[in-house]
Amino acid sequence: MTTSDPLLPLRWLEPPGGPAIELLDQTRLPAEETFLTCTDVPQLVDAIARLTVRGAPLLGVAGAYGVALAAARGDDVPAAAAAISTARPTAVNLRWGTDLALRAWRAAAGHDGPVPGPKAGAQAALAQARAIADQDAAASAAMAAHGLGLVPTGARILTHCNTGALVSAGEGTAFAVILAAHRAGRLARLWVDETRPLLQGARLTAWEARRAGIPHTLLADSAAAGLMASGQVDLVLTGADRIAADGSVANKVGTYGLAVLARRHGVPFVVVAPMSTVDPRTPDGPSIEVEFRADEEVSCLAGQAVAPAGTSVWNPAFDVTPAALITAIVTERGLVQPVTPGNLRDLGGSTDSVAGPQSASYVER
Amino acid sequence: MTTSDPLLPLRWLEPPGGPAIELLDQTRLPAEETFLTCTDVPQLVDAIARLTVRGAPLLGVAGAYGVALAAARGDDVPAAAAAISTARPTAVNLRWGTDLALRAWRAAAGHDGPVPGPKAGAQAALAQARAIADQDAAASAAMAAHGLGLVPTGARILTHCNTGALVSAGEGTAFAVILAAHRAGRLARLWVDETRPLLQGARLTAWEARRAGIPHTLLADSAAAGLMASGQVDLVLTGADRIAADGSVANKVGTYGLAVLARRHGVPFVVVAPMSTVDPRTPDGPSIEVEFRADEEVSCLAGQAVAPAGTSVWNPAFDVTPAALITAIVTERGLVQPVTPGNLRDLGGSTDSVAGPQSASYVER
Repeated sequence: MTTSDPLLPLRWLEPPGGPAIELLDQTRLPAEETFLTCTDVPQLVDAIARLTVRGAPLLGVAGAYGVALAAARGDDVPAAAAAISTARPTAVNLRWGTDLALRAWRAAAGHDGPVPGPKAGAQAALAQARAIADQDAAASAAMAAHGLGLVPTGARILTHCNTGALVSAGEGTAFAVILAAHRAGRLARLWVDETRPLLQGARLTAWEARRAGIPHTLLADSAAAGLMASGQVDLVLTGADRIAADGSVANKVGTYGLAVLARRHGVPFVVVAPMSTVDPRTPDGPSIEVEFRADEEVSCLAGQAVAPAGTSVWNPAFDVTPAALITAIVTERGLVQPVTPGNLRDLGGSTDSVAGPQSASYVER
Repeated sequence: MTTSDPLLPLRWLEPPGGPAIELLDQTRLPAEETFLTCTDVPQLVDAIARLTVRGAPLLGVAGAYGVALAAARGDDVPAAAAAISTARPTAVNLRWGTDLALRAWRAAAGHDGPVPGPKAGAQAALAQARAIADQDAAASAAMAAHGLGLVPTGARILTHCNTGALVSAGEGTAFAVILAAHRAGRLARLWVDETRPLLQGARLTAWEARRAGIPHTLLADSAAAGLMASGQVDLVLTGADRIAADGSVANKVGTYGLAVLARRHGVPFVVVAPMSTVDPRTPDGPSIEVEFRADEEVSCLAGQAVAPAGTSVWNPAFDVTPAALITAIVTERGLVQPVTPGNLRDLGGSTDSVAGPQSASYVER
């Protein structure tokens, strides 16, 4: 079922259908391809919290479109931006995209108050959201090109969670590199961690890999250790939800364990993320706020209890991998290798791009 | 719902209800406590393969009772023993218990042929099965006593899979140590890995912990890395399915990754297993045959597909942890610490016990 139809996880709808944001409901995949239309910001915030829309880069896009939606409706735009920004705490892109659109709205509306901005403000917020989406697609292509250089011929790549077109306005982050390797004939096999508790690997990455015709094999997360020990992994590629100034990477829970195992087995461990994921205001790994999610994500599956009722659960959505365990970070601007604060800063400092963490709207807040 | 009712995962039924083996159906826990009665060996072999009955020590007991069942029925006892022995390949206890009972039957029946033995043979096989069960209960108590010395006051212990009364004629292996620590007031918290794919931690260990009134918290397997990094684990305790002569331990998939992480974080990693788990005929880790199980264990959950139909899966039931990562092995005869071939051999060589791997029936075959 290889298909080249582009995946559209998020679409802006103009009137008369809109203004609205249409989301591919990622919680229903792969069983159903259904769409959710958010006509106001509370609906969008709920969709973000429930992971209908998810993935660091796409959250940046969604946040910006959310501000555009509030502005188009004549809502209280700063209040809407605040609600969107805090819908999930770890992925810094969400706050980043929201802030950029809010800033564009403010500049065009000509005031900083909570009253509805004029039509120019709404247009500016929407234009900014579209610019972020375009930039994300371009960043995805650039990351794929830069990352391809790290993939040897015949590579057997292990990945965790979902980092493809479902998380991006382009082809994604780590998965974009995997796609590039596949197209270049370098990919022998993609190993897909199922990624408990929400099974984004089994549900989403396996689905994207099948769509793209990539040879792939699913495994339980805890089987990755034995797989590496058996010599069947040449490279680990993951995305990131936040990169601290010291190069520490917050990503889907389980990433840190993979990095430790990769180091033990001499397997390169590479993170692929746009510069919008780098947060210079977070100095180091311990400063990253890790989101904890509901017990039921672990204690129930497919609507059925898999643990005794009332069992207490420790359910962090993310963990933090120190820079020392990361072989390289692939960004749209090139590689950070080795991963040091200086190298990360050098790459960030060279930009005048809308997507850069050094852009005024990001740093000034 | 703390209860002191003993768990009976396996019972021998005499006529008129028997001869038969009654098994607590562990695949239905914790939702239902239902029992399966095996009146012949093919039913038992099927129950072993489907994990109705499971866990290394209990498989030894089940194998021996299976031989007793075949003998009581007048079946072809050697053929039955062969079928039972190979129902699952990794847990050496299954073969060990089966062989012991077969040997007892042969000695009492007075011949080595495939024809049914006399009543004395059936009685001898049953007596041997009962002796193995009794010995397992005693071994469990001895392991608990020896292992308790490794548990500091206020310990937060992480465990993987299920190692309690459900896998034993006693209180189990690692879980027996955990129970002893709880009774001694030393256990602050038990962290329970859910243990994908079959969720023996979520379904069975959480259920046993609740029954025993042990404070416990469930987590996704891949969250254990972040948990250790956060400094909330003082000790990792697991069971074993086979211990090679060099001290390598085959145990539930995910164990090896925990051992690597424990080493990184300076957390002791301790294996608890009866001597019947030690296989001197397996020289080292790479010689251990690892069982691969059906794709559907990973790609389906609670009867629902969680990956696209036809997704290929890598599903080893076990992995192998090298001796160098293991702080100590706790057996009924004491500790193997450090885990070296010599220390393991010394402990094994001192026995004249029915449960010893050096017993003639085990080594001679």
